[in-house]
Amino acid sequence: MGKLLEKINSPADVKRLSVPQLTELAEEIRSFILSSVSKTGGHLASNLGVVELTLALHCVFDFKTDKLLWDVGHQCYTHKILTGRKEKFNLLRHFGGISGFPNPAESEYDQFTVGHAGTAIATAIGMALGEKLKKDEKDDENKIVAIVGDASIVNGTSFEALNNVGLIKRQMLIVLNDNSMAIDATVGAMAKYLSKIRLSQTYEDLRDTTNNILEHMPVIGKSVEEAIERIKRSIRMVLPASQMFESLHIPYFGPVDGHDIGSLIQLFEALAEINHPAILHVYTKKGKGFSPADKGPTKFHSTGPFEINGDTVETTGVTGKRTFTKSFGEHLMELAKDNDKIIAITSAMCDGTGLMGFREQFTDRFYDVGIAESAAVDIAAGMAKSGLKPFVCIYSTFLQRSFDHIAQEVALQNLPVVFCVDRAGFVGADGPTHHGLMDIGFLRMMPNLTLTAPANDIEMKLALEFALSHDGPVVIRYPKDVVPPESFVKAACKKSFEYGKSVTIKSSKKSRLVIISYGSILTEAMKASEELKKEGISVDIINARFAAPVDEKILSILKKGKSVVTVEDHTIACGFGSAVLEMAAANKSPLNSIRILGAPRELIGHNSRDSQLFQVGINAEKIAEAVREMTG
Amino acid sequence: MGKLLEKINSPADVKRLSVPQLTELAEEIRSFILSSVSKTGGHLASNLGVVELTLALHCVFDFKTDKLLWDVGHQCYTHKILTGRKEKFNLLRHFGGISGFPNPAESEYDQFTVGHAGTAIATAIGMALGEKLKKDEKDDENKIVAIVGDASIVNGTSFEALNNVGLIKRQMLIVLNDNSMAIDATVGAMAKYLSKIRLSQTYEDLRDTTNNILEHMPVIGKSVEEAIERIKRSIRMVLPASQMFESLHIPYFGPVDGHDIGSLIQLFEALAEINHPAILHVYTKKGKGFSPADKGPTKFHSTGPFEINGDTVETTGVTGKRTFTKSFGEHLMELAKDNDKIIAITSAMCDGTGLMGFREQFTDRFYDVGIAESAAVDIAAGMAKSGLKPFVCIYSTFLQRSFDHIAQEVALQNLPVVFCVDRAGFVGADGPTHHGLMDIGFLRMMPNLTLTAPANDIEMKLALEFALSHDGPVVIRYPKDVVPPESFVKAACKKSFEYGKSVTIKSSKKSRLVIISYGSILTEAMKASEELKKEGISVDIINARFAAPVDEKILSILKKGKSVVTVEDHTIACGFGSAVLEMAAANKSPLNSIRILGAPRELIGHNSRDSQLFQVGINAEKIAEAVREMTG
Repeated sequence: MGKLLEKINSPADVKRLSVPQLTELAEEIRSFILSSVSKTGGHLASNLGVVELTLALHCVFDFKTDKLLWDVGHQCYTHKILTGRKEKFNLLRHFGGISGFPNPAESEYDQFTVGHAGTAIATAIGMALGEKLKKDEKDDENKIVAIVGDASIVNGTSFEALNNVGLIKRQMLIVLNDNSMAIDATVGAMAKYLSKIRLSQTYEDLRDTTNNILEHMPVIGKSVEEAIERIKRSIRMVLPASQMFESLHIPYFGPVDGHDIGSLIQLFEALAEINHPAILHVYTKKGKGFSPADKGPTKFHSTGPFEINGDTVETTGVTGKRTFTKSFGEHLMELAKDNDKIIAITSAMCDGTGLMGFREQFTDRFYDVGIAESAAVDIAAGMAKSGLKPFVCIYSTFLQRSFDHIAQEVALQNLPVVFCVDRAGFVGADGPTHHGLMDIGFLRMMPNLTLTAPANDIEMKLALEFALSHDGPVVIRYPKDVVPPESFVKAACKKSFEYGKSVTIKSSKKSRLVIISYGSILTEAMKASEELKKEGISVDIINARFAAPVDEKILSILKKGKSVVTVEDHTIACGFGSAVLEMAAANKSPLNSIRILGAPRELIGHNSRDSQLFQVGINAEKIAEAVREMTG
Repeated sequence: MGKLLEKINSPADVKRLSVPQLTELAEEIRSFILSSVSKTGGHLASNLGVVELTLALHCVFDFKTDKLLWDVGHQCYTHKILTGRKEKFNLLRHFGGISGFPNPAESEYDQFTVGHAGTAIATAIGMALGEKLKKDEKDDENKIVAIVGDASIVNGTSFEALNNVGLIKRQMLIVLNDNSMAIDATVGAMAKYLSKIRLSQTYEDLRDTTNNILEHMPVIGKSVEEAIERIKRSIRMVLPASQMFESLHIPYFGPVDGHDIGSLIQLFEALAEINHPAILHVYTKKGKGFSPADKGPTKFHSTGPFEINGDTVETTGVTGKRTFTKSFGEHLMELAKDNDKIIAITSAMCDGTGLMGFREQFTDRFYDVGIAESAAVDIAAGMAKSGLKPFVCIYSTFLQRSFDHIAQEVALQNLPVVFCVDRAGFVGADGPTHHGLMDIGFLRMMPNLTLTAPANDIEMKLALEFALSHDGPVVIRYPKDVVPPESFVKAACKKSFEYGKSVTIKSSKKSRLVIISYGSILTEAMKASEELKKEGISVDIINARFAAPVDEKILSILKKGKSVVTVEDHTIACGFGSAVLEMAAANKSPLNSIRILGAPRELIGHNSRDSQLFQVGINAEKIAEAVREMTG
């Protein structure tokens, strides 16, 4: 740890430093982040980009009372370091350590546990309206600052909020952190516009803009509109960037250099006094100061542990094992070779959803719509209506943004859109904002949807083939995990997917209990069964394959009087087991001995995925324990 | 029916008419709509506004092959009249008749069954991309037209789609139907901007703009950009309106008069030939030609039957009975008198959610954010974080747009936001796009949320009091229905709401069956019980009050061995009954005899609400039938 950083225990310590010291501190923080993340894994490039910005904010504002709202939130490491959490970076995103996202449970400097895009401006509006209350209790109002990236500002929620900024009749600063780089390639009209402007700006232009803003800031008795007018008259204001915001009646300042810490402090000091919402457009460099991240920010957006040797980087701890994501991406490409109606759509997650190969090979059949899950689904619906076969690839947690669009534009119309739901179930280090624990529930209520989940690599292929041939919407869910080794892939798994049909993995007359597993958790069930076998307990195993419709064969098992344990990587509420119960009740089947294993209605914190499965009771050990209880 | 309209059986008949004849036809259609809706009820003001616009579109395009996408869709009556459905207007929105929204099952001229805002541009993009396929099969590409109102264009989904219009490298026309009037008052920056421009425009300005667009339309070999440049140079182009769209790189034309049918035809003919997406901004007048609707478009947005006497209008068939909506609005006002932290938030549904009185009495504690359900919830979350007590009032069907925001910004943070979910359950005439059948399911998966449902007027008051005092998020759901008469309000309903506690309406030792009812459907259960009593069948009745958590008392009932019938105005999948099953399974309670009554996973068409309850089996008659089966 650098010698300046060593002495920083709270923002008060930052405020005492001179600009040259702050510049030095910025470098120390960058080294610290780099070194920490290389050991723990985490979000890297975005955090290296906002060091100076975060320092400047903490110099000017007091975020114990002022409110700092991070959009998405994975760029909050410097903020965490400055607010008393630097010692805890050795366990960043690990059990017992700090989260990779803002978290009010960790610190009074954090407001919201965030993780999804587009929420900062709306929550800031709400807090600004709420501050009225406190104003009556003390003399000055708390300031509010929302930091939004260029990838988040185009999200529908951001826009709805921007359209409502007029509700606020007081200070509220929106910092547009423009690093000209969404998680993946820049997409959409806004992004193209911003990047075009950025390319036209020299370093001198940015300095001129900064100086002119500072010169013409509103003084007492002058309005922000007058200030903007003066600034416009005196400099070559970059109108295009301001056009969108001006049409929404939000005063726009910028663009300015987001690494010039002295200027940033002056700008924030000036803007903090404006009695009106305003936007400051700041240019930062993703991955700044670390050339591999600088050159490949996508790769270092979210990374596992790695080793630095000079300028080269080697990722460590990577098993090289095949993941469900990779399996999906490859099998989809195989299918796409023979069927030119197959289209892949993603919302700013090309890499994360395993579509890099698809994009390269089928450029004109790949669409990335940016962080716009709602539009992604409606665009897919339109495509399906016109005869195409769109595969919409969105993480389970982000698909929640599309709930209504799936219900209305897909399910209600019975259109053959395929939803490829990655990161379904527990996601490990990203924690509660990113778990995908509700998709079975929210999707199985809708008419016409077929819900399926492959248990392994070959089933991924078969599920995709099924989805391709099925004339209606299909959901395929799979976890952030490696596919199980061949020894866990029984012959039954190699049979084609048949609508609504489960497959029997293991069955014997002497067993008194059946485990019915949905999706990849089957491997845990099989491991449990092996353990139990050693103890002389024999269990049957069914691989459900479908959660909607549930195989009616399960009814006949219930009727035989065997006990049933259902297992799923999903909340117990509304999940697969719940669907089994509903079917049994509707058919007056005996329900005396059925137990549902899944997640409780509770927040499960960041940890390894294995530990999370253990914690909620759906890994092999815990499944075996449940079976022992049921049979013993 | 007018003499011209009599002869119109398809758009081909429209194409044959001269402009003076079309103008006459427009008046005939207006009379026809007015007369029809006065008998059947329906959306009135918006439909009177788009008669000329729709006629002009059908004159120019052939929507058997070209694609017409209506946003929201309640303004499609003229379109339905022209496409062979005029004879069916006597049963508009009634059983056996046509729907009030576009519906592909009715006509090949309709593309999507719609009803929610903001989807037309995204689905149009999808269809435009899909048209590529068909282009290979025939010579010319089908044209695509999306019609979006000024209230819908500010929705997040619209914006996400606008940001992605660049995906389209071919013709796609977006008609911005600007009637300067959202369902309720105009809100948001965009709306204010549009109305400011509108006020500055004279009729001559509109004519000039039209003429200049026509003069400078792109001809072969010239790009749309060049045309726009020429137009801008030659007329006083209204820049502000185009600013937003230009920053998104979408060529903007307008504003023009949406009632000048001759000009509209010429404009559409010209714009149809542009090989690029474009926006035409059209001014129309909501309620045009019918002075009561013209003066009070909110009142005549969606109306029941009425009688016209000259210029005055009397609504007929209105019972004057107290609705759950009215009950909610009044009780919330009562509470707000004594608690200045209470805030009401709505998404363009002030009237529909019963907040007109609240808005009048507590102007500075009322917020309408426009059709922006996502932002509404996040703004409320920010307010709650700052110590306010926001009541978010959104219909169940539209709350689907906020699923992720409720999960992330409210449930995950455990913030005391109250969701007042009107139109929960079957909604009658609006049909499948508007039923609120999934809210219990999607909300009960989330941690920290408490789900409750009042059964009658007094319980509405008590539920609101409970929500106000509870330190965490609470959901209150209630239907589009009248509150039950006093005779159905037993003493048990007058007891305060206690967290997670049900109340017993009726219980006797000799009964062998318990009906457990959730919400207002209790009245149907009580009626069923009265019927059954006459037959000598005695049943117990429990009013569950809470769906999350479910009262554990229910377990003890199950243990006594009585049969159970659960009743809810919601899908069986993931609903209240499903929660009871999960609890029973988790507690190893006997489940031999439990039956869940609710909606199937099917589309239930427009009809009266009573008929819908009958159809799915949750009215008194059907509940009694189920009990007879269970006990007989």
